[in-house]
Amino acid sequence: MRIGIVGGTGDIGEGMALRLSTRYDVIIGSREEEKAKTASTTCRLRLDELGKVCSLSGVSNQRAVDEADIVVLALPYKHLVPTIASLTGFEGKIVVSPVNPMEFGETVSYVPPPEGSAGLLLKKLLPESARIVVAFNNIAAHRWQTIGEDLDYSVAVCSDDDEAKRIVMDLINTISHLSALDAGPLKNAALVESLTPLILNISKYNRMKDVGVYFR
Amino acid sequence: MRIGIVGGTGDIGEGMALRLSTRYDVIIGSREEEKAKTASTTCRLRLDELGKVCSLSGVSNQRAVDEADIVVLALPYKHLVPTIASLTGFEGKIVVSPVNPMEFGETVSYVPPPEGSAGLLLKKLLPESARIVVAFNNIAAHRWQTIGEDLDYSVAVCSDDDEAKRIVMDLINTISHLSALDAGPLKNAALVESLTPLILNISKYNRMKDVGVYFR
Repeated sequence: MRIGIVGGTGDIGEGMALRLSTRYDVIIGSREEEKAKTASTTCRLRLDELGKVCSLSGVSNQRAVDEADIVVLALPYKHLVPTIASLTGFEGKIVVSPVNPMEFGETVSYVPPPEGSAGLLLKKLLPESARIVVAFNNIAAHRWQTIGEDLDYSVAVCSDDDEAKRIVMDLINTISHLSALDAGPLKNAALVESLTPLILNISKYNRMKDVGVYFR
Repeated sequence: MRIGIVGGTGDIGEGMALRLSTRYDVIIGSREEEKAKTASTTCRLRLDELGKVCSLSGVSNQRAVDEADIVVLALPYKHLVPTIASLTGFEGKIVVSPVNPMEFGETVSYVPPPEGSAGLLLKKLLPESARIVVAFNNIAAHRWQTIGEDLDYSVAVCSDDDEAKRIVMDLINTISHLSALDAGPLKNAALVESLTPLILNISKYNRMKDVGVYFR
């Protein structure tokens, strides 16, 4: 299975590449292909040091879409609309959105677009055959990066495409000790996305680091 | 410390009375005083059987407000506005809202009022000196009731009144193994309230019972 990470040179993208490339073929995408190649090399060196074999390459965002079975949009919310507008070829692809529309002020707020969530906005932006799955929204970027440590969080997943949802849930369950949970249709994306500002606020007001969520 | 539970004859109210009355003076309120007295007697008998001593009485909702230091609004969202309109005397009281505005359809949705959350709606409805604290939103009613079992969830708490928030957090930390977490100002109430429909959806789609949340 080939996983393309659009925005793969950001914190979360690079962390996901580290965790996923020892098991799957990972293509790191970037607006600038050179940056993606550098990120790919950095990741490979870190994994080499740990004696881990990986499958990683750095390409343009467009090639990350074109060559992948699963496309992960590892983008800050503010880059979502322009990035999608600059890319083609999402037809029939599984498109994973860990994107959270948030505003950072005195406190962290959930500020969704008029569609109700980033997930539902994507439904408007992408071709109808794109198989949108909202997942990985609530995992701290820093925890993706600390590959020496296990990840054992619950990962809530929403989609209107049951098969795509099952494929992404199975993928999640192969990453460290993450545990995928079905959170229903794409309509529920706001419930999953808005958990991230809550986690960031809890982190801030209780001086906790890299807070994660568990449903049990 | 006297805790008045408005709507104390509902599932959550009665469960809270069971858990709180062995440590605090609890006044169960109801629109019909007779129902509150019956609920009080039922709770007392259950605690007696377990060899636990409690302080419990059943009164009208109005007396539950008048005689309490902390008033808990254990109400379904649809009863919130009419119940508040029928009561007086909230001035200077700590008012705890575990209320979640939700709609139950094919899936469970968060449907807040125009103010943004039940917590912010209460700010409009109650006198300015009322000390609103949003807490206990995410604990399954059934788990309150099973007093033989520990509760060990995280409990996110929002308020604009730091002292009231601290009092309620200290109270939470005395109940079984609950762990209070500061979730910031009242503005963040929607983030805490909307976690409940997510929990209910996760429960439904993964066939899990009495799902709770942990932040770690």
